[in-house]
Amino acid sequence: MTKVAVLGYGTVGSGVYEVIKKNRDVISSKLGEEIEVKYVLDLREFEGDPVQEVLVHDVDTIISDPEVAIVCETMGGEHPAYEFTKRALESGKSVCTSNKELVEKHGPELLQIAKAHNCSYLFEASVGGGIPIIRPLRTSLAQEEILSITGILNGTTNYILTKMETEGLAFADVLARAQEKGYAEKNPDADVLGFDACRKIAILTSLAYGRKADFADITTEGITAITDKDFAYAKKMGATIKLFAKSVKKNGKYYALVAPFVVFPENPLYAVKGVFNAILVNSNMGGETMYYGKGAGKLATASAVVADVLDCARHKGKHLDIKWEDTKLEISPIDGAVRKFFVRSSSTDEARIKEFFGEVEMISGVADGECGFVTEEMSEAEYKDKAAKYGDILSMIRVD
Amino acid sequence: MTKVAVLGYGTVGSGVYEVIKKNRDVISSKLGEEIEVKYVLDLREFEGDPVQEVLVHDVDTIISDPEVAIVCETMGGEHPAYEFTKRALESGKSVCTSNKELVEKHGPELLQIAKAHNCSYLFEASVGGGIPIIRPLRTSLAQEEILSITGILNGTTNYILTKMETEGLAFADVLARAQEKGYAEKNPDADVLGFDACRKIAILTSLAYGRKADFADITTEGITAITDKDFAYAKKMGATIKLFAKSVKKNGKYYALVAPFVVFPENPLYAVKGVFNAILVNSNMGGETMYYGKGAGKLATASAVVADVLDCARHKGKHLDIKWEDTKLEISPIDGAVRKFFVRSSSTDEARIKEFFGEVEMISGVADGECGFVTEEMSEAEYKDKAAKYGDILSMIRVD
Repeated sequence: MTKVAVLGYGTVGSGVYEVIKKNRDVISSKLGEEIEVKYVLDLREFEGDPVQEVLVHDVDTIISDPEVAIVCETMGGEHPAYEFTKRALESGKSVCTSNKELVEKHGPELLQIAKAHNCSYLFEASVGGGIPIIRPLRTSLAQEEILSITGILNGTTNYILTKMETEGLAFADVLARAQEKGYAEKNPDADVLGFDACRKIAILTSLAYGRKADFADITTEGITAITDKDFAYAKKMGATIKLFAKSVKKNGKYYALVAPFVVFPENPLYAVKGVFNAILVNSNMGGETMYYGKGAGKLATASAVVADVLDCARHKGKHLDIKWEDTKLEISPIDGAVRKFFVRSSSTDEARIKEFFGEVEMISGVADGECGFVTEEMSEAEYKDKAAKYGDILSMIRVD
Repeated sequence: MTKVAVLGYGTVGSGVYEVIKKNRDVISSKLGEEIEVKYVLDLREFEGDPVQEVLVHDVDTIISDPEVAIVCETMGGEHPAYEFTKRALESGKSVCTSNKELVEKHGPELLQIAKAHNCSYLFEASVGGGIPIIRPLRTSLAQEEILSITGILNGTTNYILTKMETEGLAFADVLARAQEKGYAEKNPDADVLGFDACRKIAILTSLAYGRKADFADITTEGITAITDKDFAYAKKMGATIKLFAKSVKKNGKYYALVAPFVVFPENPLYAVKGVFNAILVNSNMGGETMYYGKGAGKLATASAVVADVLDCARHKGKHLDIKWEDTKLEISPIDGAVRKFFVRSSSTDEARIKEFFGEVEMISGVADGECGFVTEEMSEAEYKDKAAKYGDILSMIRVD
């Protein structure tokens, strides 16, 4: 029997409690022993909820109990999650978390502490909710040189873009509906401006290369400027628009970017709809592999935390090594990245467009007084330069 | 430094040698130590190939060398792979393999031997080539009750079906072209009759439920009867046709089947084209997750073997537990499985069709003197009974 404590009885924490309870038999059959939640830490009371029996209000009860081998940190936020995690690890208890903010900010330090105390710090649930991606990166792909990671890592934005595509609606209308349904937060900035996806690609990039990819170094654009006209152009091209979080290793340099992309059906990420998320990894031996599932949601996220709990239970007294050093991974300026660009132009003068952008593919007939085109491959810097000189640009979306 | 021996320098074995050599730096950086191939066993000579330096012809050299901690069995076939694997495990060497035949037939016994000798028997590469699926099932989904597994598990048949769909060609023509290109074997039976996919779903089902799902208990139909007309009907329905290997747990019963299915775009497997494979798992807490990648090929398969090698190296002297008991998983007769059926009928008498099959959706206009329809949901037994009484059936494909 392995005893576990859950910090925070919010959405994910209550999900962890539920998964361990409901799947007790499956877990003990696969693991060969039972997992039991001995404590749940929360400042609130939950009268009438069976969790009340194991509820505690003081983290010291948990830290000082040698019977607790594993702590699930599902509080979110930086403080006091950081302090509680540190204390748990220092007392030799493994910590499993869904807290992407904490992982992104303090991952290397917390992993060091875990190593020093022969316990583990695991965070499968911090990226991609219920999708196994951290563990595959750490184990199944450990022998691979990662060439690129491209993720649809935010369910809210993917839901909004899917609705805009299928129902021809404007961004603001879909956002309002998503907020009504609870698919988007009241303050949706972290999602629609791309910051949530940015934290997640920072974590994945750090794990891929073993050093710290800094959130602040990653150029991040959201989806707020995407219009129904953009989707009309995309449809004409047989494509769609997705918010990609992307990192690429090329010629020894590392690039990372969160931005909307025009995506064609040949890309396996094209078919990822609604609140589903997926991560496409390209590596030098195995080629493309993709991981798909629910990127958020109580039980999916909780299930990923519990998978980590089982891993810690299997390897008691041992540190599960995750290479993530506290040295900076130098992210190169995005200016050097090379790709095609989809452009909407307020001038329809094809000769002038071609003079600036070369042998473009023209897309017309979407709206009066404008046209669209896809440039040849060029660097971001080159595009920026040409666009400034050309002038008549309504909008630009990168092409994958 | 961990020393490894490779048994068999064929496609996968030479790939293992190549992956370990080419990705030496990535591997030692992630693992914290080097992996070196000390021996390659093959009866042949490879003059001019650097492998010659480590080539041996007698397995005893490997078994009796205490420096060899891990053996990669990439010989294929049952004998002598079985005997060599057993001897390696009995001498405390972990074995990593791509040999699905051996795993399917002797998995539980070899796992027992590994356990008794504190070493591991891992077989990620035996299913889905370079796609991480065995390890996610064993670790990331260990806390989940698996409700269904649906796989596109054979690259040859998926390539043939994709070509039939996109180019409107007949099965025999595509097969001939695939054989020319080396995508299909000279004797293609194991692929096109579904046996290869069947072995793989037998392994996945066994791992999902911890008992032995027997290859012979799984109803298996291939793709040889699929025609260009079937694809014309599928297109009219906005669907495609895929060879699915499927197992389902429903009301405490287990069903398994390999057969062509009509698949709609809502299914994430719809977009899996050409030689790519994918496995869609539905589980009770996390919901749907999918794993996608190259289902075959030298380097992709070899890379999966090397991932297992790294896992063994990380856990030296420890048995990595895989629950797979040598008791039979009772597969229920497929007659009890419930679904819709797509039927081509040589009679176009709609009234008579509806008399037998209820409120079907009719599909006409594909070919003279016939029509198609999709039945309501019914059990396989019920369908069989109605079909026998109705008589005028040209072909049937199950609907997912």
